[in-house]
Amino acid sequence: MSDDKRVCLAYSGGLDTSVILRYLINEGYTVVAYLGNVGQDEDWAAVEKKALALGAERMVIDDLQQEFLEELVFRGIQCNAIYEDRYLLGTSLARPVLARALVRTAQKYNCKILSHGCTGKGNEYVLAKTMALGAELLAGSSTGKDQAAGEGHHSCEDRSHKANNDDLPGSAFTPVSEGSRDPHGARKFLNTIKCQVRFELAWRALDPTVSIIAPWRMPKFFNRFQGRQDLLKFAAENNIPVSSSPKSPWSLDANLAHTSAESGILEKPEMVAPKDVWTKSVDPLDAPDVPTKFSVTFKAGIPVKLDVEGGETYTNSVELFKKLNEIAGANGVGRVDIVESRFIGLKSRGCYDAPAHTVLRLAHVDLEGMTVDSKVRAIMSWIGNEWSQCLYNGMYFSPERELLENSIIYSQKHVNGTVNMMVYKGAAHVLSRSAPDSNLYSEEQASMDTLEGFSPEDTSGFIAIQAIRLEKYGAAKIQHGEPLV
Amino acid sequence: MSDDKRVCLAYSGGLDTSVILRYLINEGYTVVAYLGNVGQDEDWAAVEKKALALGAERMVIDDLQQEFLEELVFRGIQCNAIYEDRYLLGTSLARPVLARALVRTAQKYNCKILSHGCTGKGNEYVLAKTMALGAELLAGSSTGKDQAAGEGHHSCEDRSHKANNDDLPGSAFTPVSEGSRDPHGARKFLNTIKCQVRFELAWRALDPTVSIIAPWRMPKFFNRFQGRQDLLKFAAENNIPVSSSPKSPWSLDANLAHTSAESGILEKPEMVAPKDVWTKSVDPLDAPDVPTKFSVTFKAGIPVKLDVEGGETYTNSVELFKKLNEIAGANGVGRVDIVESRFIGLKSRGCYDAPAHTVLRLAHVDLEGMTVDSKVRAIMSWIGNEWSQCLYNGMYFSPERELLENSIIYSQKHVNGTVNMMVYKGAAHVLSRSAPDSNLYSEEQASMDTLEGFSPEDTSGFIAIQAIRLEKYGAAKIQHGEPLV
Amino acid sequence: MSDDKRVCLAYSGGLDTSVILRYLINEGYTVVAYLGNVGQDEDWAAVEKKALALGAERMVIDDLQQEFLEELVFRGIQCNAIYEDRYLLGTSLARPVLARALVRTAQKYNCKILSHGCTGKGNEYVLAKTMALGAELLAGSSTGKDQAAGEGHHSCEDRSHKANNDDLPGSAFTPVSEGSRDPHGARKFLNTIKCQVRFELAWRALDPTVSIIAPWRMPKFFNRFQGRQDLLKFAAENNIPVSSSPKSPWSLDANLAHTSAESGILEKPEMVAPKDVWTKSVDPLDAPDVPTKFSVTFKAGIPVKLDVEGGETYTNSVELFKKLNEIAGANGVGRVDIVESRFIGLKSRGCYDAPAHTVLRLAHVDLEGMTVDSKVRAIMSWIGNEWSQCLYNGMYFSPERELLENSIIYSQKHVNGTVNMMVYKGAAHVLSRSAPDSNLYSEEQASMDTLEGFSPEDTSGFIAIQAIRLEKYGAAKIQHGEPLV
Amino acid sequence: MSDDKRVCLAYSGGLDTSVILRYLINEGYTVVAYLGNVGQDEDWAAVEKKALALGAERMVIDDLQQEFLEELVFRGIQCNAIYEDRYLLGTSLARPVLARALVRTAQKYNCKILSHGCTGKGNEYVLAKTMALGAELLAGSSTGKDQAAGEGHHSCEDRSHKANNDDLPGSAFTPVSEGSRDPHGARKFLNTIKCQVRFELAWRALDPTVSIIAPWRMPKFFNRFQGRQDLLKFAAENNIPVSSSPKSPWSLDANLAHTSAESGILEKPEMVAPKDVWTKSVDPLDAPDVPTKFSVTFKAGIPVKLDVEGGETYTNSVELFKKLNEIAGANGVGRVDIVESRFIGLKSRGCYDAPAHTVLRLAHVDLEGMTVDSKVRAIMSWIGNEWSQCLYNGMYFSPERELLENSIIYSQKHVNGTVNMMVYKGAAHVLSRSAPDSNLYSEEQASMDTLEGFSPEDTSGFIAIQAIRLEKYGAAKIQHGEPLV
Repeated sequence: MSDDKRVCLAYSGGLDTSVILRYLINEGYTVVAYLGNVGQDEDWAAVEKKALALGAERMVIDDLQQEFLEELVFRGIQCNAIYEDRYLLGTSLARPVLARALVRTAQKYNCKILSHGCTGKGNEYVLAKTMALGAELLAGSSTGKDQAAGEGHHSCEDRSHKANNDDLPGSAFTPVSEGSRDPHGARKFLNTIKCQVRFELAWRALDPTVSIIAPWRMPKFFNRFQGRQDLLKFAAENNIPVSSSPKSPWSLDANLAHTSAESGILEKPEMVAPKDVWTKSVDPLDAPDVPTKFSVTFKAGIPVKLDVEGGETYTNSVELFKKLNEIAGANGVGRVDIVESRFIGLKSRGCYDAPAHTVLRLAHVDLEGMTVDSKVRAIMSWIGNEWSQCLYNGMYFSPERELLENSIIYSQKHVNGTVNMMVYKGAAHVLSRSAPDSNLYSEEQASMDTLEGFSPEDTSGFIAIQAIRLEKYGAAKIQHGEPLV
Repeated sequence: MSDDKRVCLAYSGGLDTSVILRYLINEGYTVVAYLGNVGQDEDWAAVEKKALALGAERMVIDDLQQEFLEELVFRGIQCNAIYEDRYLLGTSLARPVLARALVRTAQKYNCKILSHGCTGKGNEYVLAKTMALGAELLAGSSTGKDQAAGEGHHSCEDRSHKANNDDLPGSAFTPVSEGSRDPHGARKFLNTIKCQVRFELAWRALDPTVSIIAPWRMPKFFNRFQGRQDLLKFAAENNIPVSSSPKSPWSLDANLAHTSAESGILEKPEMVAPKDVWTKSVDPLDAPDVPTKFSVTFKAGIPVKLDVEGGETYTNSVELFKKLNEIAGANGVGRVDIVESRFIGLKSRGCYDAPAHTVLRLAHVDLEGMTVDSKVRAIMSWIGNEWSQCLYNGMYFSPERELLENSIIYSQKHVNGTVNMMVYKGAAHVLSRSAPDSNLYSEEQASMDTLEGFSPEDTSGFIAIQAIRLEKYGAAKIQHGEPLV
Repeated sequence: MSDDKRVCLAYSGGLDTSVILRYLINEGYTVVAYLGNVGQDEDWAAVEKKALALGAERMVIDDLQQEFLEELVFRGIQCNAIYEDRYLLGTSLARPVLARALVRTAQKYNCKILSHGCTGKGNEYVLAKTMALGAELLAGSSTGKDQAAGEGHHSCEDRSHKANNDDLPGSAFTPVSEGSRDPHGARKFLNTIKCQVRFELAWRALDPTVSIIAPWRMPKFFNRFQGRQDLLKFAAENNIPVSSSPKSPWSLDANLAHTSAESGILEKPEMVAPKDVWTKSVDPLDAPDVPTKFSVTFKAGIPVKLDVEGGETYTNSVELFKKLNEIAGANGVGRVDIVESRFIGLKSRGCYDAPAHTVLRLAHVDLEGMTVDSKVRAIMSWIGNEWSQCLYNGMYFSPERELLENSIIYSQKHVNGTVNMMVYKGAAHVLSRSAPDSNLYSEEQASMDTLEGFSPEDTSGFIAIQAIRLEKYGAAKIQHGEPLV
Repeated sequence: MSDDKRVCLAYSGGLDTSVILRYLINEGYTVVAYLGNVGQDEDWAAVEKKALALGAERMVIDDLQQEFLEELVFRGIQCNAIYEDRYLLGTSLARPVLARALVRTAQKYNCKILSHGCTGKGNEYVLAKTMALGAELLAGSSTGKDQAAGEGHHSCEDRSHKANNDDLPGSAFTPVSEGSRDPHGARKFLNTIKCQVRFELAWRALDPTVSIIAPWRMPKFFNRFQGRQDLLKFAAENNIPVSSSPKSPWSLDANLAHTSAESGILEKPEMVAPKDVWTKSVDPLDAPDVPTKFSVTFKAGIPVKLDVEGGETYTNSVELFKKLNEIAGANGVGRVDIVESRFIGLKSRGCYDAPAHTVLRLAHVDLEGMTVDSKVRAIMSWIGNEWSQCLYNGMYFSPERELLENSIIYSQKHVNGTVNMMVYKGAAHVLSRSAPDSNLYSEEQASMDTLEGFSPEDTSGFIAIQAIRLEKYGAAKIQHGEPLV
């Protein structure tokens, strides 16, 4: 089969992507189904079995957890990344890893087309119709929560198409290759590519030769499937197994770093989020009555060791992070409920729980207090903000992110040390820290008893010179009739 | 008596400033003792009684709490001020108010000299000897903790002198007026002014004609009082009542916004801070087993109403803040234990507890999510950082702070609304919020069902244009042999 | 006639907008033609006569020069606005004034539709077809240059439509009101609004109820007029007078602040721009052999007086600016030839000449050296950059621009004084300056002979404290085997 | 002789440093005289002869030109460094190279003491007395200009001492080692180190074990030499040859990058600087009547080739820069006359001429237009500002400079290409440029005829999404009674 009918489909096993998988096959495409494991809960074998049953040429399931942590999450920790003072960017951090893995898979299996199929959300546009469809669960899975998370995560979160107009020749699914566009003929462009921000921006940078089929943006598709009933009808006709679980009243995205919940009933920011919105952490009120203590050791700003009080030690990145999710989650740590500014200019509410990520960021900020020069810290605070914006806005594969990251890594050379912490009923606390390699903190100097080359008079000189500007300011205020006292 | 022998002394009632008060009188000065109430615990009547007993012309005690909150703390909340991601600037915020009040008092009572007398700390230089003296408590006060706080707060925290050299004519305490300095005669300057950064910088701007006597920097004084015993001997000789309470093994500064503890045994950052370091908040482990809920209402970014679950409402700034300190403190909220970068380039460790301040900052950040445009927020994040740096570095009375503040106030015009919160065992949680005046958050738009003037295709165009740069980046990477996939 | 058939058309008198004017009338619209005077050369009477002859209900010509200078250009000068270190933003500054005037005119004459009709350029998308049409000149005008400038300026530079699809009922020119859009029916959106960035962004903020007809984006229109011949044929059939002047081999935009040239043969950045690209300044080689001297006086950062050596004085903003354009232009001052980054991510080359603007910015920067505190200047440098980005990106009517502008005005309170300058053969030179109101520069202090309150020792203390960090840095370098020497 | 009596003296050959050299020898020190060649005009042999005649153990003269250009000046060009929009930092850039060379020399010749001896200026404090002494010229040199420059440059510009008080035992010149300081004994500190900001900060980082003797800060020295007559008397008594040239009425600092003039009669900013202030460039009015054309080729942001119209080519960094100084200087290019903000908070006026530097910065800015992504450029603009501040403030040997520089170098990877320029009567003009390696500028894309993957509709979508925020802004304005129209 020629490459131009081979599609790599982001497949979750849910109703939407199952319908699309089958629909694509019905339209004559060969489908390589792809699912990336970034730490979500999933019955991987069930997904594979279902994809093959529906006619996929193959089901590719990658373990991207280490890549996700080491290249993205830990980079965010190194620069104390945070968006609008609250959000640790859990979803934004997973997107580049998934986008790259999809392109990698497409290239490996000679697919020149990428497809994805479920409800966009987050920074991505959400077709009202597909919202109504909700997050259909994988048939045979046991819990609604996990399944919804699985549905929500990545195979679904991008939705674009590149269809010809109805009155143009060819199948509605024939992607228009980029090269063939004619900017002089505007009509052609009326059916041009539609896709979601983060995935699409990443794909553009990663491989602009790849075309995209996003059925939920194609009139032929979305006019046929106008509601959940249409999908169920198609499923029945095509032997697609359907779960009987009710859909969640909000949309979920889960990975190792966090679970996000948004949309649906959460769209009333004046309403308290329901208890079961939170999947990675227990309610602080339900957390144990005794705190859990542990220490995190960093090397060059990267967490390399977790010592839990009592004796266990974790050094593998994925194990360390999972253990911290477990510990911090069990103590109700890592929840934020915020209204944030989307890239596209709207505000929306999100409930995120990110136990391990929250703890590691706090530990890292603390350790920087011991190991990073104040001016370097001030510069890196700005750099970290820019990096966070890049990630949030889907600009990971960009020259500015590369530039910023070069600085981030450089700034972390001496961020070595250990932070001792405690988690308890919803809060993480830094108890103490040590950084033996750094000469920046000095107990002796802190006490000022022994600071060589520094005298009481020096303070005077320092003040006298700093004050020159201020005295002029005060004098001008008097001159202008606005004395400061 | 001529003005040039009238001193306005920052007086705390502790051993150090009591000795200085008496010493100044012995040297022929008339002393106006001053103590500003920025919310510290203090036996005000006892301080006044003692000052007058020691010979002060008068004891001036000002209630600066409202000024402190409304001009400083609430401005910090408006710009989400924070230093190095952790410290809410409690001490830095109080300094300008105290510095200004001292100058105001000096002007009112015709004092051309300011004096202060106890152990510098925080950003300020600490003479080793005076450290050894510790924080002597006010005789007759009841609790060591409160007294230490009182001692630590402001009358003590700045220490400067402007003495002539021993071999120059005149009393060692004769201040050299600024105008009379002779830059050609360097010898004179060998005993020039020594003072603490924040107070001194403020005074320079506020009234450069005021001279300063800081005994702990004057050889004649500090050579005489080389240890606590010398002070006690002088106290005994001069009928200065002395407390029998032991001194605290760290130094304390307390005001309405926070209590800070540092120095002494805290200078080992690898040691966990002792439990009694924290004075405004209970240990989270000792906090109540049920959370406390309340809501904070803001107008133009200023907290104007506190509604506590159950019915009480507070609208007066001081009452509101005190109540929040009580509620949040009782639930163990507001502690940070950090190593921070001092203005002068050293690192030091501080333990701060700031219950109300922590809660209000969180509430304000949350409300901005509903009410402030994303680009404005990004700009104000930078402005807030600059403002925080200004305050930390003692640059309150500066043209840059005035400029920044003008922006801060402007940015808050529409930050109106209410945030519902809960405090529980060491953590503050935002539960929900509403901002009826703002059109930035729209439930309808968040769901994307009804966004007028916005189509699915728009996303495509947005992506296509954003991607132009990224595609060039990806293409250049391939060209340079560094493909992104 | 009902409002929904009344169009306010940005009309330049050129071929394109004349065809559109007539076309609209043929389609049943009533047209109010609008032309804003931002200082371009134009035969205003001829434009009016032509518009009325073609059937416009009325021709509105506004003098926007003062508004343009005082609200936009002078604000740019106050913040030393510059884009990518070189471009003074001449075109970007005119856009908001023109966009607002168009909306004002539409509102005044009950037009609910705005239309524009000629070749976009600059930051705006250029349809290949319309590029081929070039800049058609106003019939009967005398010089190609001025006419091209007229054509290029604003009536042409935005192009959008909001047409129904061909298979939908109604005229192809019936604008779809925003409210009636159905996001569920993607087909409808295939012919949705298309418009140029700066104008369109402004209009959206100014009056979102206004609809837009941009013929060059409407298939029915651009399919009919596929080349210049089609336009000329329509002109002949409709009695539209056509100039016989050849079109310029680049596109021009002119206003009081600058003339910009780009596109066409300028798209080869390795080719030197032809001499006649420059219209506001003579070639430096052709400039007079003697310099011209003058002085500019600022009040609050705004130029309020121009004294030309020899005696003339100008205080009216428009007269002052025009005189400076004349003087500086005659001396070859104000040219830049650059490759810049467009908002949409592409690079393009522009040749700008801005004689008066260049001189005033230089004068203002110089005067700030005398009158603005160093920290304020550093902050304002950042603010000015942000403001420049806002303007360049068409974000004038935005909350961030309003916030930034509030700071700009505040920062200029004391920027009062006079700068003496000389222009000569392509360069402007500051010769000297004075700012009597400011206490920041002091001849006495500059010489350091008399700085009160400042001693040689103070420098030592200042250095000693500043060096604390640096010594730690040097020591760590040695520790890590990378000594600095 | 033990190391503790070996001094490395920054020696210029002028009266001040000659007196100090001899004085140190009289006090029992062994002196290694040092002079660094950073491109100033100097009679090197005469300086060496004089130093040895006065008793120096040796005279070390280093050629630091290449180091100065390649490590400092070109780094500044890479980040378009500029201070307060005008000053190219010529003096600031030379300081680190000279400071490091002095330490290197001291280490090589076992000197544990550094000394310098003439009139501070620029950012450095100027003792009123030494100002009166002026810049004494090297005996036997021919032109006042060059000699003044020599005097002014580096051996003179730092002045510090570490003397004991008169009433303490030991020679007044015995430096106090840092380690021996007793913070408890303030008297000792009366003789602490005094030194100039940039040199001193550099030395602190480079080798904190080195002590400093700065006679002009030592009472014993400056009380003895209270005026020029005292110096001349000492010179006569000690056989120090003295020039008869009159001293310049301003102070000069010259190196390859620029000549700066300041102080003296220049301290009246309202006076035009005299013609002979400028030493590297002719008066534009005296420049040739025909322009000179040339092209500069950059590799990774570094100028690597200069092709002068007519045939000569320069690739060696020093030769290239000198040739450009010659060409641009002969055409009157590179002068700025400004009032700037000193680090210490004062304003001062400087007249700088920097022909080659001015041209290279302009060329580099231009080439970045072709080769650097817009977002990277915006980030680097901020980084370049920070780097400029670091250099100006003497913070070259600092962790922040190292961090910033890492970004600068990274950002320049693809800044390859050639800029064609012209200099003529005071102005430098970019005529055209090419950057064949970069894909950022594309003639085809600039014309928009052929941009693949981009349609007219995309602009609409881009605008529609960008406008979401703006529409809300406009609507809120109306709601608050402040409509934008």
